[in-house]
Amino acid sequence: MKKKVVLAFSGGLDTSFCVPWLINEKGLEVHTVIVNTGGFSDEEAKSIEERALKLGATTHTCINAVEDYYEKGIRYLIYGNILKNNTYPLSVSSERFFQAMAVLDHVKKVGADFVAHGSTGAGNDQVRFDLVFEVLAPEVQILAPIRELSLSRQQEIDYLKEKGFDFSWEKSKYSINQGIWGTSVGGVETLKSSGVLPEEAYPSQVTDWGTERITLGFEKGEPVSLNGEKMPPVTLIHTLHKIASKYGIGRDVHVGDTIIGTKGRVAFEAPAPLIIVKAHHLLEKHVLTKQQLYWKDQLSNWYGQLMHEAQYLEPVMRNIETFLDDTQQFVTGDVEIELRPHHFAVLGCSSEYDLMNSKFGEYGETNKSFSGQDVVGFTKVIANPLKIYYTIHDND
Amino acid sequence: MKKKVVLAFSGGLDTSFCVPWLINEKGLEVHTVIVNTGGFSDEEAKSIEERALKLGATTHTCINAVEDYYEKGIRYLIYGNILKNNTYPLSVSSERFFQAMAVLDHVKKVGADFVAHGSTGAGNDQVRFDLVFEVLAPEVQILAPIRELSLSRQQEIDYLKEKGFDFSWEKSKYSINQGIWGTSVGGVETLKSSGVLPEEAYPSQVTDWGTERITLGFEKGEPVSLNGEKMPPVTLIHTLHKIASKYGIGRDVHVGDTIIGTKGRVAFEAPAPLIIVKAHHLLEKHVLTKQQLYWKDQLSNWYGQLMHEAQYLEPVMRNIETFLDDTQQFVTGDVEIELRPHHFAVLGCSSEYDLMNSKFGEYGETNKSFSGQDVVGFTKVIANPLKIYYTIHDND
Amino acid sequence: MKKKVVLAFSGGLDTSFCVPWLINEKGLEVHTVIVNTGGFSDEEAKSIEERALKLGATTHTCINAVEDYYEKGIRYLIYGNILKNNTYPLSVSSERFFQAMAVLDHVKKVGADFVAHGSTGAGNDQVRFDLVFEVLAPEVQILAPIRELSLSRQQEIDYLKEKGFDFSWEKSKYSINQGIWGTSVGGVETLKSSGVLPEEAYPSQVTDWGTERITLGFEKGEPVSLNGEKMPPVTLIHTLHKIASKYGIGRDVHVGDTIIGTKGRVAFEAPAPLIIVKAHHLLEKHVLTKQQLYWKDQLSNWYGQLMHEAQYLEPVMRNIETFLDDTQQFVTGDVEIELRPHHFAVLGCSSEYDLMNSKFGEYGETNKSFSGQDVVGFTKVIANPLKIYYTIHDND
Amino acid sequence: MKKKVVLAFSGGLDTSFCVPWLINEKGLEVHTVIVNTGGFSDEEAKSIEERALKLGATTHTCINAVEDYYEKGIRYLIYGNILKNNTYPLSVSSERFFQAMAVLDHVKKVGADFVAHGSTGAGNDQVRFDLVFEVLAPEVQILAPIRELSLSRQQEIDYLKEKGFDFSWEKSKYSINQGIWGTSVGGVETLKSSGVLPEEAYPSQVTDWGTERITLGFEKGEPVSLNGEKMPPVTLIHTLHKIASKYGIGRDVHVGDTIIGTKGRVAFEAPAPLIIVKAHHLLEKHVLTKQQLYWKDQLSNWYGQLMHEAQYLEPVMRNIETFLDDTQQFVTGDVEIELRPHHFAVLGCSSEYDLMNSKFGEYGETNKSFSGQDVVGFTKVIANPLKIYYTIHDND
Repeated sequence: MKKKVVLAFSGGLDTSFCVPWLINEKGLEVHTVIVNTGGFSDEEAKSIEERALKLGATTHTCINAVEDYYEKGIRYLIYGNILKNNTYPLSVSSERFFQAMAVLDHVKKVGADFVAHGSTGAGNDQVRFDLVFEVLAPEVQILAPIRELSLSRQQEIDYLKEKGFDFSWEKSKYSINQGIWGTSVGGVETLKSSGVLPEEAYPSQVTDWGTERITLGFEKGEPVSLNGEKMPPVTLIHTLHKIASKYGIGRDVHVGDTIIGTKGRVAFEAPAPLIIVKAHHLLEKHVLTKQQLYWKDQLSNWYGQLMHEAQYLEPVMRNIETFLDDTQQFVTGDVEIELRPHHFAVLGCSSEYDLMNSKFGEYGETNKSFSGQDVVGFTKVIANPLKIYYTIHDND
Repeated sequence: MKKKVVLAFSGGLDTSFCVPWLINEKGLEVHTVIVNTGGFSDEEAKSIEERALKLGATTHTCINAVEDYYEKGIRYLIYGNILKNNTYPLSVSSERFFQAMAVLDHVKKVGADFVAHGSTGAGNDQVRFDLVFEVLAPEVQILAPIRELSLSRQQEIDYLKEKGFDFSWEKSKYSINQGIWGTSVGGVETLKSSGVLPEEAYPSQVTDWGTERITLGFEKGEPVSLNGEKMPPVTLIHTLHKIASKYGIGRDVHVGDTIIGTKGRVAFEAPAPLIIVKAHHLLEKHVLTKQQLYWKDQLSNWYGQLMHEAQYLEPVMRNIETFLDDTQQFVTGDVEIELRPHHFAVLGCSSEYDLMNSKFGEYGETNKSFSGQDVVGFTKVIANPLKIYYTIHDND
Repeated sequence: MKKKVVLAFSGGLDTSFCVPWLINEKGLEVHTVIVNTGGFSDEEAKSIEERALKLGATTHTCINAVEDYYEKGIRYLIYGNILKNNTYPLSVSSERFFQAMAVLDHVKKVGADFVAHGSTGAGNDQVRFDLVFEVLAPEVQILAPIRELSLSRQQEIDYLKEKGFDFSWEKSKYSINQGIWGTSVGGVETLKSSGVLPEEAYPSQVTDWGTERITLGFEKGEPVSLNGEKMPPVTLIHTLHKIASKYGIGRDVHVGDTIIGTKGRVAFEAPAPLIIVKAHHLLEKHVLTKQQLYWKDQLSNWYGQLMHEAQYLEPVMRNIETFLDDTQQFVTGDVEIELRPHHFAVLGCSSEYDLMNSKFGEYGETNKSFSGQDVVGFTKVIANPLKIYYTIHDND
Repeated sequence: MKKKVVLAFSGGLDTSFCVPWLINEKGLEVHTVIVNTGGFSDEEAKSIEERALKLGATTHTCINAVEDYYEKGIRYLIYGNILKNNTYPLSVSSERFFQAMAVLDHVKKVGADFVAHGSTGAGNDQVRFDLVFEVLAPEVQILAPIRELSLSRQQEIDYLKEKGFDFSWEKSKYSINQGIWGTSVGGVETLKSSGVLPEEAYPSQVTDWGTERITLGFEKGEPVSLNGEKMPPVTLIHTLHKIASKYGIGRDVHVGDTIIGTKGRVAFEAPAPLIIVKAHHLLEKHVLTKQQLYWKDQLSNWYGQLMHEAQYLEPVMRNIETFLDDTQQFVTGDVEIELRPHHFAVLGCSSEYDLMNSKFGEYGETNKSFSGQDVVGFTKVIANPLKIYYTIHDND
């Protein structure tokens, strides 16, 4: 009996090449799998399945991991207001782990001895993928034909032709990675530090040149309503995306350090993630204390970095999630946002837990909790260590 | 002989009240002083001087502290990419210390026994002002008549009338604080969490509805050229302000924790600071290592917080400045920015110290420093602690 | 009917003075209360009660808060391995909050309008005490007669004599604060930076000059057994204290920054806290990952600082406790300790969750998870960013 | 002409094997080098040289790197009070980089194409060594015969015998790594979590059972005098070692995470480093502000971790050194220490920059900078955010 391999399959040239190669050169029974984290439609899924079977896959499976991804990943990216390098909502890097986990589940279900992916030897995704298998399924052997063989596109096409598969493989000008938490766009322009992507490289174009106000409702940190209408967070993200992408909102370029130590640059379009994160952050500024905001920032920044760098399985991630969960119990309220072409502004919020409460005196107005004389005392006390310091160092 | 008081004088109702009050009720010789940190013109300075003398001040002095403020304050706000709560460039809070220091210098020059300011007992500025005197000149007595007397506007106006000063004192609808590093705007809307300032409350209106590309040049972290033309940083900030304010860029609302423990909310307009900070940050993402970016963030965040909270004199600030200075030696290069109505985008940069250098393989392309097999080894090693952890915790 | 005051009463001169003073000068009905956090015996409690009633207190109450203090405070000091400035287990500063809370409960039970304490205006404890009442019971008025009157010891003694109370009030040479988490000792020597307390100033003397090995058992981070015998943590701390104090272990001098901005210096003796913290920390080094250890350190350090500075009520403290709780689920195992005169050493530990597990290859021996060639690849990848950096900066 | 290899040579079995192997199997001209970072005497150096030449090395060189190691490494370990995991002064891990750098210098001087070391594939040192060459001399090829061949000790001995080298190679029971900053000791006991090294495994034995007081003088953070006698830091460390090692002071066991992801455990003896670090830290508690102490801790902890993990070349290390240098300008004064068998205590200090200065009121005594009433005001203001929080959350 042939041994089985589960192949993470996207339908592109690299993974298409892998199917006949794994069958013919490795003598394996190939089971393809694709994991949906919000990046493709049912029709696209259907056509990918057809291609897999045509290429010789014994079975093809499409796993929907969006809910899982939201529940165990995106939720914490929201709680943590996570924007890597102050810019990037981790659109691609955060979904890879959930895809790898779904593939791993499939490997176990199928009872495969091998798992295969189409990564090259030059990017981060190979690390994100391999690491999950190294850690959780060391008994499964990893195959990465593209990394091992270092073939050119033409060599892959030739091999496929030779095996009788004569699809058209035009290289798209921009490499696009789409998921529920945003779309990344790479092209010749992003390989240089100064290149600017043309308008048409972005998946959404500005079609509405007016302005629009929307209201996002949060409950214990989760986005749960849009313009007053309750909906599940995943639905909300999709709906908000449709509204905001008309304005070309949420584009930027992320420059960062990759897991493998180079600087990488990638454009992205992520209107819903950016709006949700900024609205959530504003609400937190009103309902959390300064200390809570400080430590949330520290831990979230680290959480985002570890997630980006393939370390989702690190146990400290669970500890940080517990912390974040605990901070969210009063992050409940509505946030108003204004959408404009290429731009949005978070206008204000209302919450029953708002600490900017006029009962205690509005800032700059007379405060009911203490007097001006109390502030004089306060200032004297906080001045004390500096007073000592500057007296001692009088002549330095 | 009468004892002398130096009064920090803005020409507004509160400090105008103080002049005759200090003369008549305290029997002091009043020397008014105003410190310019980029917030008013020569004509305004002139009219403030006239009012001071009319009110009975023995002398009036206008001190220009812009260069000092840039050199010892703004420069580090740029190096640190400092935006409080990810939003606010510390437009007002960062200039108070330099104003207080200039007043202190004047106190010493005049040989005054007293220093007076017009702060109420309800805000942060009283702390920022008093602290400098408590620490550096404990022998000088601080007078804050408005804080002590808790008078209403009408009572102040009545007192002035009684003393023969019948100016018109219409309360402006918005309280505006202007300086080279931005303008804050407070109004009835900012006293609530959901209020939105009307367009006209902002000092600049959108007059240009097109787009424009500009280039900012940095040298060792300082902004030194605009569209290829070299100019001193202070000039550059003023020039950039003029260009960008036509687009209504750089407005936002800051919500934060005040020194005295309340939540405060204030609108601001700071096009030049925001553009400079974002451009500087982009350049740093290209020329600094991940570790440098991380620690710069940590220290800068703290630096901004301490500056905001009146702790500029804390000696750790000097240590942090030394660190920041040292990180800037290669932050040299040009950054391209696109200006649009209400919005700007930092497009890209070029620098001879750019670490995103194609000699080492473009990200995602074949890397010349290591092979795919090296990355397999890398992944195995970084997987190791997690592998151990999950084996030990197999049944948990 | 007379209004009631609850007075925190220790039986010392200051609080003894307060009883007749509150009755006679303030016309209040005095209810004394003392809170035991492990610092005194039943006999001492009895004699304190007698004195209170003799001085005119309407009622006297002794509240045992040890369990509460352990459960809500000490437990987290252990989880966090908290030693302020790497030295001090927060022996005194951590118990004040729990004492204030117990007094507050009593105030509510008695229905008092006033609460009084004997703090002077010069220390930290007044802040710790007042703050709890300011925050949780702003309707209760705080009286601090010693702070307000600034009397000398002799004036207090004279007043007491005049009111007919002629106790003997010899000032003890050393000011001692005893509780379950350690004893602080202040004297004329600790007022200077170089003074050394004499041996006899410490509560325990070395009586055993031999050595002894003990085993501490932890379960989910809590100390639960001593030399194999299970016991409640509070009992364990008392028992361990008896064993270890024979060796004069756990003495040191803490130098730190007080809440009110001065440097303070105090000697302490805390054998059980130091042994427990060091043993707990060793166990954690074996069962937690590097990332968990790092973030535990960060948050615990802050937790200890906030507790020390009277900020136990800050909501971030609850968030941090949740984090710490979550990290402790596998901190289970036995730790061996050697006791010697003036010194102990943590020798080693055993735990079923120990990550130093020989299944994966002992350090320095052949590793079963990766080969030497894998490490070569690992090193090449981690060298990559530095390689880029040094090539770019070849001539700098 | 034969190509040249520079071999890092210790005289032990592994590197002795490498000499004939590199000559015979690789056809290289072998130039041995040993770098002294304080770990061996002139006699030992002599005997190592003899062995190298006997084994066929063309040249042998001994480089003294102690001063360099102190100046660029140890100095910052002192400034930072660096003890990894609160225990370990980085005795071994901090010297490897300086050894590798000295070897690299020698490689360049000799004009070698190859560099060789005797590391196995299982430890940290291979990473520390390889990384320096990968980064700074990518043109030099690294040879690590022991890692590549995975030979047993017996196979190495047999090969040597076959080549005519019949030295005696008894494996010492404990693996000892000695340097000026301490000695590490590994043995069968340290491979388990609970093993305790026997007394005789440590290089120094207790020979003095009395007590002794010494005074360490610091100038700008550096240890410059011992008992009043000025001496260069390197001399001071050696002298202090001699005094303190008589008491068996400075032993402990370090448990930590290795670069390659396992937990490692090693015993060490480092009396001088521990005494210097603790004395330096005490002095800093007196002369630095709370903020300075906090940030020094943060940066130093990271510095130590990066140094431990072979990242000395990371540019942020230079930025941190600049910060540390700047904090040390007033860390000048004398510290008194008591030595006892197995234990030392830091007693107190004196410094002209001591911030615990009685001019400002001793702690707990009347303070001259503010009144009790000022503290009441202070407490009200710092209570304010919590008061707001608890009022808003009254019913939660």
